This record gives sequence, structure tokens and C-alpha cells, in this order.
Amino acid sequence: MVFKKITLIGTSPESFDKAADDAVDRAEETLDNVKWIEVDELGVEIASVEGREYQAEVTVAFELEDR
Amino acid sequence: MVFKKITLIGTSPESFDKAADDAVDRAEETLDNVKWIEVDELGVEIASVEGREYQAEVTVAFELEDR
Amino acid sequence: MVFKKITLIGTSPESFDKAADDAVDRAEETLDNVKWIEVDELGVEIASVEGREYQAEVTVAFELEDR
Amino acid sequence: MVFKKITLIGTSPESFDKAADDAVDRAEETLDNVKWIEVDELGVEIASVEGREYQAEVTVAFELEDR
Amino acid sequence: MVFKKITLIGTSPESFDKAADDAVDRAEETLDNVKWIEVDELGVEIASVEGREYQAEVTVAFELEDR
Amino acid sequence: MVFKKITLIGTSPESFDKAADDAVDRAEETLDNVKWIEVDELGVEIASVEGREYQAEVTVAFELEDR
Amino acid sequence: MVFKKITLIGTSPESFDKAADDAVDRAEETLDNVKWIEVDELGVEIASVEGREYQAEVTVAFELEDR
Amino acid sequence: MVFKKITLIGTSPESFDKAADDAVDRAEETLDNVKWIEVDELGVEIASVEGREYQAEVTVAFELEDR
Amino acid sequence: MVFKKITLIGTSPESFDKAADDAVDRAEETLDNVKWIEVDELGVEIASVEGREYQAEVTVAFELEDR
Amino acid sequence: MVFKKITLIGTSPESFDKAADDAVDRAEETLDNVKWIEVDELGVEIASVEGREYQAEVTVAFELEDR
Amino acid sequence: MVFKKITLIGTSPESFDKAADDAVDRAEETLDNVKWIEVDELGVEIASVEGREYQAEVTVAFELEDR
Amino acid sequence: MVFKKITLIGTSPESFDKAADDAVDRAEETLDNVKWIEVDELGVEIASVEGREYQAEVTVAFELEDR
Repeated sequence: MVFKKITLIGTSPESFDKAADDAVDRAEETLDNVKWIEVDELGVEIASVEGREYQAEVTVAFELEDR
Repeated sequence: MVFKKITLIGTSPESFDKAADDAVDRAEETLDNVKWIEVDELGVEIASVEGREYQAEVTVAFELEDR
Repeated sequence: MVFKKITLIGTSPESFDKAADDAVDRAEETLDNVKWIEVDELGVEIASVEGREYQAEVTVAFELEDR
Repeated sequence: MVFKKITLIGTSPESFDKAADDAVDRAEETLDNVKWIEVDELGVEIASVEGREYQAEVTVAFELEDR
Repeated sequence: MVFKKITLIGTSPESFDKAADDAVDRAEETLDNVKWIEVDELGVEIASVEGREYQAEVTVAFELEDR
Repeated sequence: MVFKKITLIGTSPESFDKAADDAVDRAEETLDNVKWIEVDELGVEIASVEGREYQAEVTVAFELEDR
Repeated sequence: MVFKKITLIGTSPESFDKAADDAVDRAEETLDNVKWIEVDELGVEIASVEGREYQAEVTVAFELEDR
Repeated sequence: MVFKKITLIGTSPESFDKAADDAVDRAEETLDNVKWIEVDELGVEIASVEGREYQAEVTVAFELEDR
Repeated sequence: MVFKKITLIGTSPESFDKAADDAVDRAEETLDNVKWIEVDELGVEIASVEGREYQAEVTVAFELEDR
Repeated sequence: MVFKKITLIGTSPESFDKAADDAVDRAEETLDNVKWIEVDELGVEIASVEGREYQAEVTVAFELEDR
Repeated sequence: MVFKKITLIGTSPESFDKAADDAVDRAEETLDNVKWIEVDELGVEIASVEGREYQAEVTVAFELEDR
Repeated sequence: MVFKKITLIGTSPESFDKAADDAVDRAEETLDNVKWIEVDELGVEIASVEGREYQAEVTVAFELEDR
């Protein structure tokens, strides 16, 4: 059994929770067997967006299929 | 005056705030004089739960009674 | 173009998101050209407040005006 | 559901794997519901032992019982 | 010459060495020109497996082909 | 042979050395076989005390008795 | 909006700047919407090359297309 | 309530405690509401001073006045 | 003698050296007694600029005047 | 009593334990009073060797003789 | 001009300051042109000494002579 | 096969690349079998030099001869 990890940054105009959810949603759309995520960094983008954009950089772990 | 620190992981189906609260609640049930907590890590468990489980690993500081 | 970074700790009785917002609000009141923030640490103060006070230590980046 | 983490250092005259096992064995003798361990540091003690003593400092996570 | 790095977690019921080997084996099955790996973290999973499962999170570096 | 590590914060109105001693004193009152300590962080509390309170957060390592 | 991050090592016989550029060039050949890079590590390979090879390990962030 | 943090390096020909005090003294001369300090780094300057100069780099936290 | 440290990000279309110089130039225009800088992070901004913008986040240390 | 620390990388075709032993063996051949080692990093070299070469970077602490 | 850095651990029955001094004294006996030291870690050894032994692990920087 | 690592700081009035080269040059004059270097820290000295002195702290790895 081998797992792989990738790094995504999710965004939300509302909260850090939703920014993390955004990254998990995307991972689950494209990957099977997502197991857990770890939050690496939180931030808020201000200059290039309207209002505030919460950001959550997360590491997504998923199980690779047997070959 | 001496403080002690212990490490707990709180969980919640809803948000990181509630996961941290979960750990503080538990600490306050079993320890007197809880002073503050520091968040060490945030994560989301997906594989072994229904839906998503937000997790907050926290360090809890409390004051030891005089001996 | 030169940016400067300063470190603030925002507080909220409600959530980590609002604690970060509190720091961003303060930064925007006193600084022009705030660009983004990074969350350095999250914590909860318990002993010296009523209830719980969520705290977010953030680094605020803003652009310095040309001289 | 709340987990607690404690830190143990296991030792073995043979290998790092057995030093980690030594810490897990001890944890399982005294704690219910041990879930996983993380290896924090590996080392070898030479001066105060015969031969070499492999050491593994590990963090042990276990689930606290409901109250 | 450009290298790419990916992160895998190998597992083994026997030892940390074999867990690292497990990740290297998988990398070599699917990637050409694997150059070296770095061990990021070691752990032991206990709750969700029979016995103990040694885990090695490793970063795998491989050379990209010229385009 | 298994060691356990706990984290204490000692305090002193005089110096960092005495703050570390404060934590070691407490550890030796309640634990047998204290082996060594590592200093994790030093700080000075100003707001909630008279004068200044030197603080030393230390990790205390002690040997567990055989079972 | 979701970003993904990958890790590349660029190389150059001339300078660290050019080694970073080498990695950015490669990223832009194969990925749309490259946004920024962060330098993780710098080094110089000596043994296996003629002269000196400057190396820059960088994290490349790019925006994923909507699905 | 918002706190700000700044970084100072205090110096003393005598000890690390006095070097930290030197930074706290300076902070209290120029800032209201200094709350606590954290020691970031300790060092000793030898080349550019007579004898030895103990240095303590500290982060000073103070409360900003309401606006 | 007390030093203060602040954090700036310098930018340059040409190289990391010039990005660091940019921050030092700005510091020397507005501060007396700049002593040294430490490079905290290097990066390249791509999305919001023409071409590439090298960035150097640096900590600037300067001596405070006696009061 | 003063200790000195040096950094070695031991290698082995067999395991991480033997790679660490390789470094300790070398240290004991050339240094008196080796006290302990700490493992800094583990890795596996693949490209420039036959099969796999386990590597252990270790810090070796030894006591200096009185002068 | 090239500097070299080495790592020493000084010890003292009295204080962390004296433990650091112990390492500096030793460095100055055997090396010319010692420039500065950085404190890496502080600790207290208890088990293998009478009373308590303060320890300071320091990095010593000195200038190499021209060749 | 055993490698050793030492830490040097190279300097240059021109650039970070040349500061790193300065350290590599020195290493190659006095050591056989230099294999690679890793850059640990970059900085610029301003107070004690004319103009600016770029500094690169590097770890140099070299192979020890068989005994």
C-alpha cells in the first residue's frame, strides 16, 4: 500500500474552513481514495480580489491503486 | 509558579474552531486552572469517518497547584 | 517597489476567522496598500478573559510608497 | 472524540525499528486505544552503555474515553 | 537539466527500511530516471491495521526528460 | 528501558537560570529518575505580574520503572 | 479558484538566478497559469559535473482550470 | 483588542538575562502597554567589542490603543 | 546598545542580488545605522508583472539611537 | 568539560541502522571519547550506485580532552 | 575572507551564561580570530553528574587565515 | 564510504553567487573529494565593510578517504 501527497491551495470569500473545503472538494473530484489532508498554511489575499479571500494551503494524501 | 503543557487533538464535523473548542472543553473537564492553548496543527480526516472531520491538535497550558 | 511586513495579533470572542479579520481591519485603518496577510499562529486565551478569546497572530504585507 | 499525545523514548541494542517497538510496547501496556505513533528523533547512545543503544523518541497518540 | 520531486508514503509490516523500499519500488515502476529519495517522516500505524504498519514518507527526485 | 518526556514552564523573578531550576525542582518533587532537561523557550511576562517574571519552558526526561 | 504546487529543481552552470529561471522555464512549457515560485533550497553540485552546477529547488504555484 | 510585535536585540557585558532586560527597558521607554517578550536567539559578540557582549534577540508584544 | 529589526521585501526584474539591494537601498534612505541584513526568503512573481520579478524578503538590523 | 560535535554521513547497501553504524564506526576509529550521535537525516541514493545505498547523516558528539 | 563554524557544548555547575563562556574559553584557547557565537540549545544534565550541570550548545564562528 | 560536512561562510563584494563560490574555492584548496554544497543562509554585511559584503553560509560535503 502506497500513498501519494499533493499540495493544493483552496480559496473562499468566507472562512478558512471553507477554503480548506474548497481544496478537498477539488481533490475528491479528480482523485480516488482521498484519505486525509493536513493544513500547511493559512492566509488572506487582499490586493488582487474584491473584499478578502481566505486561503488554505493543504497537503492531500490519497492511496495509489495497486499495479 | 509552575505550568504544565499537554497535547490534545479535538475533533468536529463542522469547523476548525469547534475542533479546538472540543479539546479545550475536554481539558477544562479534567484539569483546574487551564490558562491558554496554542494550535499546533490543523487537518481534516476523510477516509475513516462519514463526511469530513475537522481536527485541531492543540497544546494546553495549565498551572500546577503548589505542593 | 518595496513591501514591508509587520506582525499583529487580532482577537475575537467568536472564531479564528474573526480574529484574523480583526488584525486586518486594524492594519487597513492605519496603513495604505495592504496586500496580503499570512497566519503565523493561532491560539485561545482562557485565563485572563471571560469565556474564550480566539487569537490569530498574522504578518501583514503592505507596499511602501515611492520616495 | 478527543485524542491525547505523549512522548516516549524507546531503546534497543539492535535497531531503530526495535527501539520504536519498545516505546509502542510500553504504550500499549499502559494505555487503551493507542492509534498511531510518529517518530520525532533517532539517536545512538554510546558512552553510558555497553556497545550501542539505538534510541527512538516517538509521539504516541491514543483516544481518550468519553466522560 | 530539471528534476522534479514528488512525495510518497510507503508501508511495511516489518521495518522502516522496507517501508522506504516500498515507496522506492513504486516510484521506479512508474517513473524513469529516479535519482534519490529523502526520508521526511517515519511513523507506525496501529489502529487500522493488524499488528503494526511501519510507514516512511519520502520525497522522490527524478530527472525530467528534455522537451 | 523507556523514558518519558513532559513539558513544564518554570518561573522566577530573577533570571532564566532560576526559572529553569524552578521547573527542575518541581519535576524532582513528583518524579523519580529525572535524567535531563532541554530548554524549549525563554520569555519574560510583564503585564500580569509585578516587575518581570522570567519564564523557561523545558522538556523533562525521566526513566519509567519496569513493569 | 484552486491552485496547485509542484516542486522542481532547476540547474545552471552560471548562477542561482539562472537555475531558478531554468525551473520556471520548464514549468511554463508544460503548465498554464503559472503564478509565482518560492525558492526552497539553493546548492552547488561539484562531484558529478564539469565545473560547478548551481541548483535551485523551487515550488511552482499555478491555477487549476475550472472543471 | 489588537497587539503588535516588534523585534529588538538587547546587549550586556554581563549575562543573557541582562541583555534581555536591556531590550525590555528600551521597549518600555518608548511603548505603552508592553505585555510580554519571547526570546528568539541568544549570542555572544566577540570580535568588535572589548571582552564579550551577550546579546538577546527578543520579540516584544504590546497592546495597540483603540482608535 | 539596542538594535531593532524590520522586515522588507525588495524587488528587481533582474536578479535576487538586485532584489536584496533594493530592500537595502530603501532601508538606508529611511534609517540611520543600518548594520546588516539577513535573507529570509527568495521568490519570483510571475502572474501580476511583465516578465519575471525577483523578490527577496530580508530582515534589516539597525542600531537605535541612545535616548 | 567541553564537547564538540561533527557531522558525518554513513552509507550501507543494507539498511538505515547499518548506515548509522558506518558513521559511528568511522567516528570511533578517529576520535576518543565518542559519547552519542543524533540522526539528522535519512535518504537513499539510487542514481550513482548499484542497487540502493542507504544513507544516514548523523551528528557525533565527543568530549574534548582537557588542555 | 572566509569564516568557518564549529559546534561546541560548554558546561557549568552554575548558570547558562557560564556554560556558554566555557565553550567560548575553549574556542579561544585553540582558535585565532574567533568572531561571534550563536547559542543553539540550552539544557541541564541531571542523571550523570552531582547536582545540576548547565549546558550550552553553541556555534563558534572564526575567520580562516588567508592561504 | 563516509562523508563529512563542514560549515563555511564565503564573502564577496559583488553577489551571492560569488560569495558561495568563495566558500567552495576555499574548501577545494584544503580538502580532497568535495562533492556538493548546500546554502544554509544568505546575508549582507553593511556596518563593518566598505560598501556591501554579500555573505553565503554553506555546508560543504566531502568524502573521507578509507582508512
